[in-house]
Amino acid sequence: MSQHKRPQEGRSFGDLGTAIDLALFGALGDLAQRKLFPALFHLEREGLLDPSTRLLGLARQELDVDAFKARVEKSLKTYVKAEELDREVLGRFMARLDFLQLDFTQPEGYAAIREWRQGAEQPMVVYLSVGAKIYGDICRNLDASGSLDASSRVVVEKPIGYDLESSAEVNDAIGSVFPESSIYRIDHYLGKETVQNLIALRFANPLFGTQWNQNHISHVEITVAEKVGIEGRWGYFDEAGQLRDMVQNHLLQLVCLIAMDPPANLDADAIRDEKVKVLKALKPFTDEMLGRDVVRGQYIGGTIDGQTVPGYLDEEGANTSSHTETFVAMKTEVANWRWAGVPFYIRTGKRMPAKMSQIVIHFRQQPHYIFDPDQRDLAANKLVIRLQPEEGIALEVLTKDSGLDKGMRLRRGPLHLDFNSAFPKARIPDAYERLLLEVMKGQQYLFVRRDEVEHAWQWCDSLIEAWNDRAEAPRRYPAGSWGPVASIAMITQDGRSWYEDY
Amino acid sequence: MSQHKRPQEGRSFGDLGTAIDLALFGALGDLAQRKLFPALFHLEREGLLDPSTRLLGLARQELDVDAFKARVEKSLKTYVKAEELDREVLGRFMARLDFLQLDFTQPEGYAAIREWRQGAEQPMVVYLSVGAKIYGDICRNLDASGSLDASSRVVVEKPIGYDLESSAEVNDAIGSVFPESSIYRIDHYLGKETVQNLIALRFANPLFGTQWNQNHISHVEITVAEKVGIEGRWGYFDEAGQLRDMVQNHLLQLVCLIAMDPPANLDADAIRDEKVKVLKALKPFTDEMLGRDVVRGQYIGGTIDGQTVPGYLDEEGANTSSHTETFVAMKTEVANWRWAGVPFYIRTGKRMPAKMSQIVIHFRQQPHYIFDPDQRDLAANKLVIRLQPEEGIALEVLTKDSGLDKGMRLRRGPLHLDFNSAFPKARIPDAYERLLLEVMKGQQYLFVRRDEVEHAWQWCDSLIEAWNDRAEAPRRYPAGSWGPVASIAMITQDGRSWYEDY
Repeated sequence: MSQHKRPQEGRSFGDLGTAIDLALFGALGDLAQRKLFPALFHLEREGLLDPSTRLLGLARQELDVDAFKARVEKSLKTYVKAEELDREVLGRFMARLDFLQLDFTQPEGYAAIREWRQGAEQPMVVYLSVGAKIYGDICRNLDASGSLDASSRVVVEKPIGYDLESSAEVNDAIGSVFPESSIYRIDHYLGKETVQNLIALRFANPLFGTQWNQNHISHVEITVAEKVGIEGRWGYFDEAGQLRDMVQNHLLQLVCLIAMDPPANLDADAIRDEKVKVLKALKPFTDEMLGRDVVRGQYIGGTIDGQTVPGYLDEEGANTSSHTETFVAMKTEVANWRWAGVPFYIRTGKRMPAKMSQIVIHFRQQPHYIFDPDQRDLAANKLVIRLQPEEGIALEVLTKDSGLDKGMRLRRGPLHLDFNSAFPKARIPDAYERLLLEVMKGQQYLFVRRDEVEHAWQWCDSLIEAWNDRAEAPRRYPAGSWGPVASIAMITQDGRSWYEDY
Repeated sequence: MSQHKRPQEGRSFGDLGTAIDLALFGALGDLAQRKLFPALFHLEREGLLDPSTRLLGLARQELDVDAFKARVEKSLKTYVKAEELDREVLGRFMARLDFLQLDFTQPEGYAAIREWRQGAEQPMVVYLSVGAKIYGDICRNLDASGSLDASSRVVVEKPIGYDLESSAEVNDAIGSVFPESSIYRIDHYLGKETVQNLIALRFANPLFGTQWNQNHISHVEITVAEKVGIEGRWGYFDEAGQLRDMVQNHLLQLVCLIAMDPPANLDADAIRDEKVKVLKALKPFTDEMLGRDVVRGQYIGGTIDGQTVPGYLDEEGANTSSHTETFVAMKTEVANWRWAGVPFYIRTGKRMPAKMSQIVIHFRQQPHYIFDPDQRDLAANKLVIRLQPEEGIALEVLTKDSGLDKGMRLRRGPLHLDFNSAFPKARIPDAYERLLLEVMKGQQYLFVRRDEVEHAWQWCDSLIEAWNDRAEAPRRYPAGSWGPVASIAMITQDGRSWYEDY
């Protein structure tokens, strides 16, 4: 692959996907079957797949096309609602599918991809839904086989490496074949409607935009709570831990979108330049902070929804001396002009009481207060952006209590924007639908640039190193609780509390 | 009445009404029967009438107590919902009632009031639900008969006079007997929940409070639209006109609450001092403004809800050469540091297509815009405070359109605070319930001080004088329309429009 042209930057406003040839590596894998094919089917259903778009499944397994199609159809029946599985749409979708058995690490089979592409004018999108350690092999084999051209794009899934060094290796391998402007690194949180809504809320609403700084915001909270444990992937998870698995990517991406300075426009690099500035401004960890502002946790046995569940060290396949964290809470800061002095409290953990992801922007109290002294603490606004379980936005405002005996007493009244009830006809697309559509449009603004990945690793690596130096066991928390008591103490020592009453 | 003590200032937060003796002049009148007795009944029902509170009806008509009670009961049955008319509550309420026939202008009968008060320790509240021209007589007769003491309060209804001069006469007459701190001038708009909510919204919500000025607000709109015509009161209305009848009191009170600087506390005079500052800062009318920024209208025949209705000059009893306005629209400004350059567009009229009162705060657009150029005009926030038909608050924000084919297109999404749905159990009390309760508590912050009345008259008088000098006929508008076309042009010449799509 000799020359790369930067794909033409599309507009962000309402363009449709253009024709592509999608080569999906790992087409029989869990992600492909559970997420990618259903997402592609929904795009088909909404008329967003160009008539000439083709979909090629690639897998190591021996399978003929019909058997492959049968597998895909079975998955669609499982993951798409019956009433959305229109026969005619399904037929159209199935007609796009093809399958190729391939040993990904061996160059030999790749000629078949070149043949599949013979004469095709639309760009090829290579989707790597496989382990990162063979990303390099696949890219090199594709290149060597002459299957690529300047319009080709590559989509890669996390995790990209295990730390800064290993991620650089993976990125170098991909980068030796594809230029950065053709690489689409997925963080599926960026595909969520409410996450993208952060951009609209901040930059289209003067009411919020003009207050989005340390003069008006007292602190920011991000919680990503999972109810599940390690789901049979003990060995895999134990290598990583919650910091690598969730904070390095999803939570830091949320921090970036909340904290970034307004980009001059919506071009991918304008946005990503601002995100990188946030990552570079994250306060480095000091010894003092490690003791006071960071809490690592590991769940022990407990009860969720009335059911007894085992502790992390009691799970099947567990190494009973593991110090790997299944929970992290920390107080960090974006040390720049916009955010100096505004704590970002973030936490994420497994085996928590609810599946709940939300961002809470806490606005400052006014300096002067004239209502009932008992209600002093009420008098602040919060913007709650909920990603899970239901996507929604609520603004907490104070109004007068309308009870006759209440005089001028205040009352918290959430102004709700529940997407389902506000716009009842609108189906909320899955993150992968949005992301695949953006790949088709050649738009990178919802994908992670290499320097973002690396700055995020750098910051996380420094914390992991410090943890390793200390060699302390993580704090225990019972499954079904909101994490170690220390994570509550961490925020209450600042006179605040985690917001849980959405 | 020799010495007056200032009644003890109550707290604004959740106090109950204290015991009073209410002497209601005009007890058989429309207001008393339709509003005051039902309001008092609701206070009874909610346990807000002190057990020893007594209610004395006064009227010119010969009637015995039982007949009077029967009249009140009949009115309650008309104006209170059947399910709220609990027998036991009704019995308790009726037991408080007494009646006295009285010729209000003659001193003789007032001894009976003194007798009724004999030995009573609770303050007497005199409610003047009669024409303003006999306010003075009643006050003097009460005083001369020895019925009053330092704790007595007087409640007066609008209109207080016809212009600055006549209102000063009425106020002088009341003031010769009652000190200002015992005078409760009613503007029932101040009793409305959403109007009081302006205080909570502005001063308890930093999000709004910090933006409540010319840096962040582009313009303010107030509409008070009535569907009714002059309802058989042609002669009465024709003397006044819409400016005196609606703008001088209700609309200017709304302007005050929207525009006032934050009071240092919620004491009546702290609030009213700030309101007076607004009235004093209202831009005086110039010749140029009269031609461009003020529109007078008078309705002609038209159709409302499919029904043909007569024009103002065709109504029964009409003087066919009347120039009295039934509609006023104007663009005014509060010329101070907070509001310089921010137009306040206000309009009010009869025979409009809907009964609708609302305030719309239009926030400024941001200086820079990064979304779809086609949607530039969308990108501003509005706070809509609706007083009628249903009280409610909505904040218009922009979110990302969730349609997959919409990319980063924006969508207006109102965040609603509908009192009925947000707090379904809360009955919204009628304005008079709140106001009567505040009188019982001895709290004046929802009542209009003399200087407010007078500054409002001064400003309106100058406009009326200018109209009289010009002697132009008002512009015609068909019943069932939103007023003369000129009132639309007045706002569109500034590149804006009246907000009608709540």
